[in-house]
Amino acid sequence: MKDLKARILAAVENDLEEIEKELAANLDPHLDLVRDVAGHLIFAGGKRLRPLLMILAARACGCNRQCAYRFSTIFEYLHAATLLHDDLVDGGAMRRGRPAAHTVWDPPTAVLTGDFLLARSLSIAASAGRPELIEVIANITENMSQGEIQQLHRKGALDMTEQEYYTVIKRKTAVLFQGACRAGAMIAGAGQDRQQALADYGYHLGMAFQMADDLLDYTQTGEALGKVPGADLREGKLTLPVIHALAKARDDDYKLMCRIISGSGFSREEFETLVHLLNAYGGIAYTGARASEHIGLAKQALNGLEATKALEVMHDIADYALARKI
Amino acid sequence: MKDLKARILAAVENDLEEIEKELAANLDPHLDLVRDVAGHLIFAGGKRLRPLLMILAARACGCNRQCAYRFSTIFEYLHAATLLHDDLVDGGAMRRGRPAAHTVWDPPTAVLTGDFLLARSLSIAASAGRPELIEVIANITENMSQGEIQQLHRKGALDMTEQEYYTVIKRKTAVLFQGACRAGAMIAGAGQDRQQALADYGYHLGMAFQMADDLLDYTQTGEALGKVPGADLREGKLTLPVIHALAKARDDDYKLMCRIISGSGFSREEFETLVHLLNAYGGIAYTGARASEHIGLAKQALNGLEATKALEVMHDIADYALARKI
Repeated sequence: MKDLKARILAAVENDLEEIEKELAANLDPHLDLVRDVAGHLIFAGGKRLRPLLMILAARACGCNRQCAYRFSTIFEYLHAATLLHDDLVDGGAMRRGRPAAHTVWDPPTAVLTGDFLLARSLSIAASAGRPELIEVIANITENMSQGEIQQLHRKGALDMTEQEYYTVIKRKTAVLFQGACRAGAMIAGAGQDRQQALADYGYHLGMAFQMADDLLDYTQTGEALGKVPGADLREGKLTLPVIHALAKARDDDYKLMCRIISGSGFSREEFETLVHLLNAYGGIAYTGARASEHIGLAKQALNGLEATKALEVMHDIADYALARKI
Repeated sequence: MKDLKARILAAVENDLEEIEKELAANLDPHLDLVRDVAGHLIFAGGKRLRPLLMILAARACGCNRQCAYRFSTIFEYLHAATLLHDDLVDGGAMRRGRPAAHTVWDPPTAVLTGDFLLARSLSIAASAGRPELIEVIANITENMSQGEIQQLHRKGALDMTEQEYYTVIKRKTAVLFQGACRAGAMIAGAGQDRQQALADYGYHLGMAFQMADDLLDYTQTGEALGKVPGADLREGKLTLPVIHALAKARDDDYKLMCRIISGSGFSREEFETLVHLLNAYGGIAYTGARASEHIGLAKQALNGLEATKALEVMHDIADYALARKI
């Protein structure tokens, strides 16, 4: 596991440096305040997974042009824009180990800086002069806003279905991964087949990534996550481990779980009881299995592509998405 | 004045109907909730001035294609997106005679629906397959978000300069008018000269429109406006009438004005005193004169264009922007 991470990081070290440079170079606001607020989030670190995926997808299609780094920032700015709005929507207090922007400044500033970052990614996309790239971005933003709205308005709903969950995580996470990979193929001038292959990889990776992320809330200690355990549930987000366990639970356990989930907060003991039930009814295992299926499909999508170093890294990233502990 | 409005409305009656149809047809969300929230604002009326300007600009350049109506919705959706976010930022309670969306639903829903509308306008723009149109939209959104941030962070600042005011209203209003007119010319396939002429018309019209709007807060009764008088000032927005009067005021009057503006709210009497001083120090007249100059420049920008019915209407709209009482 540690080896896998180390191998990925060694392979993309130069890419991450170039992405970092471009993130600073293309932010370009007219106002210092905007630079401060956007920079607070963007330069607090972050895995840069989305721009990296675009770069790798482009390289897997034979494109090594330096300008690809510039276009890759689109996907980090887009991501940052949604983080700014989502933290506000969810009332999230911390992000990337720093206080969230809406608490450091104020909610209006976070809203408007998010709008600016969205606009910035659009400007960069427009400068590519490729309408199909804009369609990808437009599709991502439409889906993300609706995924978040759906999640918000099903907050705490105990009748959330597995299908609904898939729709939400597709919209809020997988479509961006998918779009970043498709954009990489586009910029490389790849044809429809290769574009679709890379888009499929991104989609399945994104689905698995979100499921793995949702699992962490129940499998990792609060110390490891750097926040209190059960944060999703405290925000009223019912994810697959819970949805599956609720569907399978005996009547008395169902009622117990509902009581814990619906109450105004829960104790550490109650949370441990819940995690025990999630395990007992297979919610954890089931989610892991679904994530694993998506990783399988992500790798399968790459089958037809020429074996390259970039492809190897994409395989490693798929494995890592599933195995990561944080 | 009434005749002018009636003449404009008669000339664009069919256009407004077509725009209305397209606004309903292109909203197209996946979620009923999004349709409800977006529709609450969009179908509460509104002048449809921005899409109308795009249509007229296209027609002034010889384009009568039906598809122009579809593209014109871009500018109303963009406008609606910013209204949703701005009402939230300003804490505005009413919009178009209805309670603002963030009060009917909640702030998160207003943020995310605004994001959706921005994404929707982008999708429609992308479907035109013209990268230069996307650049216009990106430029509008970047400017608008920064104009709003600048306004927000200079809230209540008594040292706001005339130049700063112009920068803010350019970004938050004029750039959208300018973009709508330029887009109309683009869709008509007009060359750079005509594109620039129409963009200039839109820019100057937008500057005058915002100044006239800012004047209304001090020249109209609360009854006529449908809200309490002095709303801008209550929100901490120092507009040109105040900025000019503060710059010209004698020391004692300057202090009196500052006291009224800086206090936590002001009485009807205090507001009347302020309006008296705005008049006495020429703040009202000066703002009217600047708006009038912009209207002159807007009309002048159209000079080189062929005389058409559309051009006549654009002249009428320029006159109306200055003369409107509400």
